[in-house]
Amino acid sequence: MNNLYANRMSKIPRSFVREILKVADEPDIISFAGGLPNPDTFPEEEFAESTSYILENSGAEALQYSTTEGYEPLRKLVSERYSKNGLSVDPKNILITNGSQQGLDLVAKVFLNKDDTVLVEKPTYLAALQAFGLFEPNFKSIPLLNDGVDVDVLRSQIEEDSPKLFYSIPNFQNPTGISYSLEKRKIIGKLLNQNETILVEDNPYGEIRFMGENLPPIKTFTDNSILLGSFSKVVAPGIRLGWIVAEDETMHHLVTAKQASDLHSNFFSQMIVHHYLTKYDVEEHLSMIRQMYKDQRDFMVEMIKLHFPDDVKYTQPEGGMFLWVTLPGDMAAMELFERTMEDKVAFVPGEAFYSDDPQKNTLRLNFSNSNNTKIEEGIKKMGNAIRELKSQ
Amino acid sequence: MNNLYANRMSKIPRSFVREILKVADEPDIISFAGGLPNPDTFPEEEFAESTSYILENSGAEALQYSTTEGYEPLRKLVSERYSKNGLSVDPKNILITNGSQQGLDLVAKVFLNKDDTVLVEKPTYLAALQAFGLFEPNFKSIPLLNDGVDVDVLRSQIEEDSPKLFYSIPNFQNPTGISYSLEKRKIIGKLLNQNETILVEDNPYGEIRFMGENLPPIKTFTDNSILLGSFSKVVAPGIRLGWIVAEDETMHHLVTAKQASDLHSNFFSQMIVHHYLTKYDVEEHLSMIRQMYKDQRDFMVEMIKLHFPDDVKYTQPEGGMFLWVTLPGDMAAMELFERTMEDKVAFVPGEAFYSDDPQKNTLRLNFSNSNNTKIEEGIKKMGNAIRELKSQ
Repeated sequence: MNNLYANRMSKIPRSFVREILKVADEPDIISFAGGLPNPDTFPEEEFAESTSYILENSGAEALQYSTTEGYEPLRKLVSERYSKNGLSVDPKNILITNGSQQGLDLVAKVFLNKDDTVLVEKPTYLAALQAFGLFEPNFKSIPLLNDGVDVDVLRSQIEEDSPKLFYSIPNFQNPTGISYSLEKRKIIGKLLNQNETILVEDNPYGEIRFMGENLPPIKTFTDNSILLGSFSKVVAPGIRLGWIVAEDETMHHLVTAKQASDLHSNFFSQMIVHHYLTKYDVEEHLSMIRQMYKDQRDFMVEMIKLHFPDDVKYTQPEGGMFLWVTLPGDMAAMELFERTMEDKVAFVPGEAFYSDDPQKNTLRLNFSNSNNTKIEEGIKKMGNAIRELKSQ
Repeated sequence: MNNLYANRMSKIPRSFVREILKVADEPDIISFAGGLPNPDTFPEEEFAESTSYILENSGAEALQYSTTEGYEPLRKLVSERYSKNGLSVDPKNILITNGSQQGLDLVAKVFLNKDDTVLVEKPTYLAALQAFGLFEPNFKSIPLLNDGVDVDVLRSQIEEDSPKLFYSIPNFQNPTGISYSLEKRKIIGKLLNQNETILVEDNPYGEIRFMGENLPPIKTFTDNSILLGSFSKVVAPGIRLGWIVAEDETMHHLVTAKQASDLHSNFFSQMIVHHYLTKYDVEEHLSMIRQMYKDQRDFMVEMIKLHFPDDVKYTQPEGGMFLWVTLPGDMAAMELFERTMEDKVAFVPGEAFYSDDPQKNTLRLNFSNSNNTKIEEGIKKMGNAIRELKSQ
């Protein structure tokens, strides 16, 4: 019954990353492919205590249907965490979602007509291309430089195409690890204030900065903005909780769309996370995550310096979970992938992250869900495979 | 920035039920308005034990990102429960969703182009109109008789319009409480086999039959079918877990759409529910729910007989959570609502449940989330208000 499916389905390729992850998931593979937090950071005992507390004291509330907007004290807590970082957000402008992925789906639902233009970074987060793609926009990509997108190209695209949305991950971007400079954040904010394009600012990694100085969200410099956040990297991703920050009118539409999509997010988990974040020392927990990821990132950089040829380039992110590698010349990362998989080492070839015109000599390495033994062995094997390919 | 929103948003009215529920939620209101299970049935202690078990034994798995399709053992368990009822469903044809509401959203995403025809019952579940409505179909409604939809109208609509989908709730329908007869299920199955219209069979209440004989799903009689299920009424709704049953090709598309929508459903809750359903006696739990709801339904019918005028009609459902009331002549349920709210008694006026041409003298009463004291007082006050309106 092929003719019965909606047109939008023919435009969404099955995620290549997903297919890779199926292979990479096997236990004897050293995988730098996934975008997974390190499970050693998960607060299992604290979660068990929090769950007991919630079920004992508010079981009927936690297990019942509830409001679409989300658990009010959790929205307040998110608001308070923003205000500690200098951003004033009223709880009524926060909607709890199933991870920030659902934030992307809801934003697309609320804003996108077929053939609207959406600006994305080049490269960008693959699953954002999927979420937006289901609403059949035209993607235009803006080159990503070492300190953020090329603002000249951004300006001319905004002026030429009047795009509906500009999707950006300013902190430790997925897949590149690149962060926007303060100067670029200001320039972009100003540019958006002069136009009708709305910034969709995705910030799942912002709290995992392990070097350098915290920088304000672009939202600080423009009201033309929707900000997405997530508990996935700070607490745990399996509970699928994130949020959207938007102004009143947009929030009204987002709540309508959320209600039609799944009524509300898991309330049991919302109450557990709120209890966990209130009762335990989250700053200490975050310090532990940052230290672990910094050590693994440092060790991966060290191993790359030792084992990769000198003409391989790579980013050295100040936070997050990913390094971005550029192979010499016209060496295809896909070919390298096939070769390293023979050695049971996995990563994601970069071409998956482009909406158009993929740069095929790029690849993404995850350092968060690993350890030094795997990093040493995996990077060494990758280095050997790169040398082999070079010599052909 | 009104012109920036997608066209689809202008077509979705904010749920009137939602607005009512906000008022009806206040503690001094006797509410027959919501569609809520009785929280006294929630297995809080068993959930606490299940959560401890999962976090102690599989914490890292429960809290990590996981597969879009859902927790494999939970999909197997759903499959086994179907096979006990004579329906053979492979676990690979089951996708775990955020309640069956998300099932509706994903089905709409996968199937509906703008202006496709969707057949719905008249009246039907309001939030299905919202979920489908976001994809801008044309709704056509099929009158609901005491034993299911009018199959003659259904046949002529299918032949005239080649609708993409026919959305049906064959067991203890929301809002009417009506169930389809075995004969109608067979006729509808045969009709669908001869056409390309796909049945979307929503069955959230099937396991809460407290009288009469279990009847097979319409899916038994046709392959042209997508079946939706839910843990909301059997376990608890706050955890937002349900599922979709579909054949391979449709499942492939549904998984793609689910991945783009929120990657996967809450894995922590999936594992807890699986442990709970495996370790504890669910049949005993279901018996308890059925007995409670039967008692409350019986008492509500008894009170209606005692306190409503004789020319008020009402359904006497064999399961589920709702009665459907038809007021005499041209009495408007909305006017009755305004009057009973002065007495702090709430229900949902029927017009919210129609895609077109609402029958304004109808209303929905929920009996599951109540007790005999409230039922007696609430129905008595409603009866007085009806008599008052009649005498004007």
